[in-house]
Amino acid sequence: MDDDTTDAMPWHTPVIEALRAGDHNRVADLDANGTPGFDGDKALGERLLEERGGVLSDLQEMLYACGRTGDNRAVLLILQGMDTAGKGGMVRHVVGHVDPQGVDHAAFGVPSPEEKRHHFLWRIAKALPRGGQLGVFDRSHYEDVLVARVRNLVPESVWSKRYDEINQFEHEIVGTGTVLVKVAMFVSLDEQKKRLRERLERRDKHWKYNPNDVSERPLWPAYQDAYQDMLDKTSTDYAPWYVVPCDRKWYSRIAVTELLIEALEGLDLDWPAPTFDIEVEKRRLAES
Amino acid sequence: MDDDTTDAMPWHTPVIEALRAGDHNRVADLDANGTPGFDGDKALGERLLEERGGVLSDLQEMLYACGRTGDNRAVLLILQGMDTAGKGGMVRHVVGHVDPQGVDHAAFGVPSPEEKRHHFLWRIAKALPRGGQLGVFDRSHYEDVLVARVRNLVPESVWSKRYDEINQFEHEIVGTGTVLVKVAMFVSLDEQKKRLRERLERRDKHWKYNPNDVSERPLWPAYQDAYQDMLDKTSTDYAPWYVVPCDRKWYSRIAVTELLIEALEGLDLDWPAPTFDIEVEKRRLAES
Repeated sequence: MDDDTTDAMPWHTPVIEALRAGDHNRVADLDANGTPGFDGDKALGERLLEERGGVLSDLQEMLYACGRTGDNRAVLLILQGMDTAGKGGMVRHVVGHVDPQGVDHAAFGVPSPEEKRHHFLWRIAKALPRGGQLGVFDRSHYEDVLVARVRNLVPESVWSKRYDEINQFEHEIVGTGTVLVKVAMFVSLDEQKKRLRERLERRDKHWKYNPNDVSERPLWPAYQDAYQDMLDKTSTDYAPWYVVPCDRKWYSRIAVTELLIEALEGLDLDWPAPTFDIEVEKRRLAES
Repeated sequence: MDDDTTDAMPWHTPVIEALRAGDHNRVADLDANGTPGFDGDKALGERLLEERGGVLSDLQEMLYACGRTGDNRAVLLILQGMDTAGKGGMVRHVVGHVDPQGVDHAAFGVPSPEEKRHHFLWRIAKALPRGGQLGVFDRSHYEDVLVARVRNLVPESVWSKRYDEINQFEHEIVGTGTVLVKVAMFVSLDEQKKRLRERLERRDKHWKYNPNDVSERPLWPAYQDAYQDMLDKTSTDYAPWYVVPCDRKWYSRIAVTELLIEALEGLDLDWPAPTFDIEVEKRRLAES
């Protein structure tokens, strides 16, 4: 492989095949330490992240340019995963490659009292990216079929209807020209313990530690069921889920970089045509 | 200078002194090609941008951590300048160093019909950064004493009162814990012509070209007066203006990087203290 290649050659299987939710990557059997589709090691992965981050950045600039000239298309990255799976790092190290003015980031924590008074999709709809933007959701409406289900925050009669509501909602979003890149991030319980311990041991990581994260650990079997149901019921042709093993951060980051590149390339973007006469403007400028 | 130093040693004058608006940098006499306070060349500048960008990123993470634990402090970078001065590049290459989830970016173009029905500070107030965020304004309320004045969009009786209104508004903002970093970006008319020509000549830059930018060029003397009045009337102790020559992009970028570092260091941040008992949590985690 040449030093300046920007191919994703170390992928023996295209990432959208290797990671797409299906029978080959059931949650209960998932190897969170795996690197599906990828042959290289960490060093190659880190080099590739820089190379492909540049490709992502160029594509995103074209999307942004299109948005500035009235194109309604957008890309929305949805990051859903267990605590410590690396959602924050994904934003910093993958989304961090692109121009901040083209990024529309939203994090969804425990709903506010106002949000609770509304339908669960109300706060989501408000945060959807405008045309030309790369939207990023750190958690999402899927909390409402994960923690809401496992913690019995609403009765089953409520959460069980949400899968269909989500599918309908996402179908509408896709219809307006937004490509959804839905990423389910999985870390093993052992790796999670290691990461939580690091948060306890380092002064600069204490702020990331939440005692509740430990309380969630015994519930992992229930969460596994909830995640599997989510994948089964809401991975659709128009908005598929990708299952990303996250014990190796470098792998999860190049995988999501490729998913975003794939989404942007699928838009078949081009630089917007000028809305002015170039020769006339050259003369005007020369005379100014 | 060591390869791994992160000092700003090539600065013979601290950037906040060299660039602070005053008698030494009047708009009419400004050398937009200058590098006030800085002794190095472009190669050093570009290396420094990477080094100091890392420092900026670390400080921003600490601000973000504080915000996550209830600290109300924030930093707001206000970029105001002539077309082609490099506002977009500043966002990409300076703000691009920090974690996107800690950045709150807003661009202010021609006011929408709804915005026009409100006081000119209405849309500004809505976009102020939350605690812990690095806010970035690409243009700002200062448009309302620049283009609004030069283009007679409102009568003098209206715009002439806005300086005091802005000062009062900013005094309140600063009082809530937001540090304002106000950057006035200046490019020479010759350099502007070169940059506009490039936008006309490159397919991937057409989208950045606006015929109106050429129409503004003959108005530069009137804009100079409006900028000077803005600096004279709204550069206050609590929210000073910095005058940044922008013909050399590398210079303007390291200058603004230093201004942001200075603002963040001035907050005297520390990592938030844990709100839990570390030893108790270590035991809970070990048992989980």
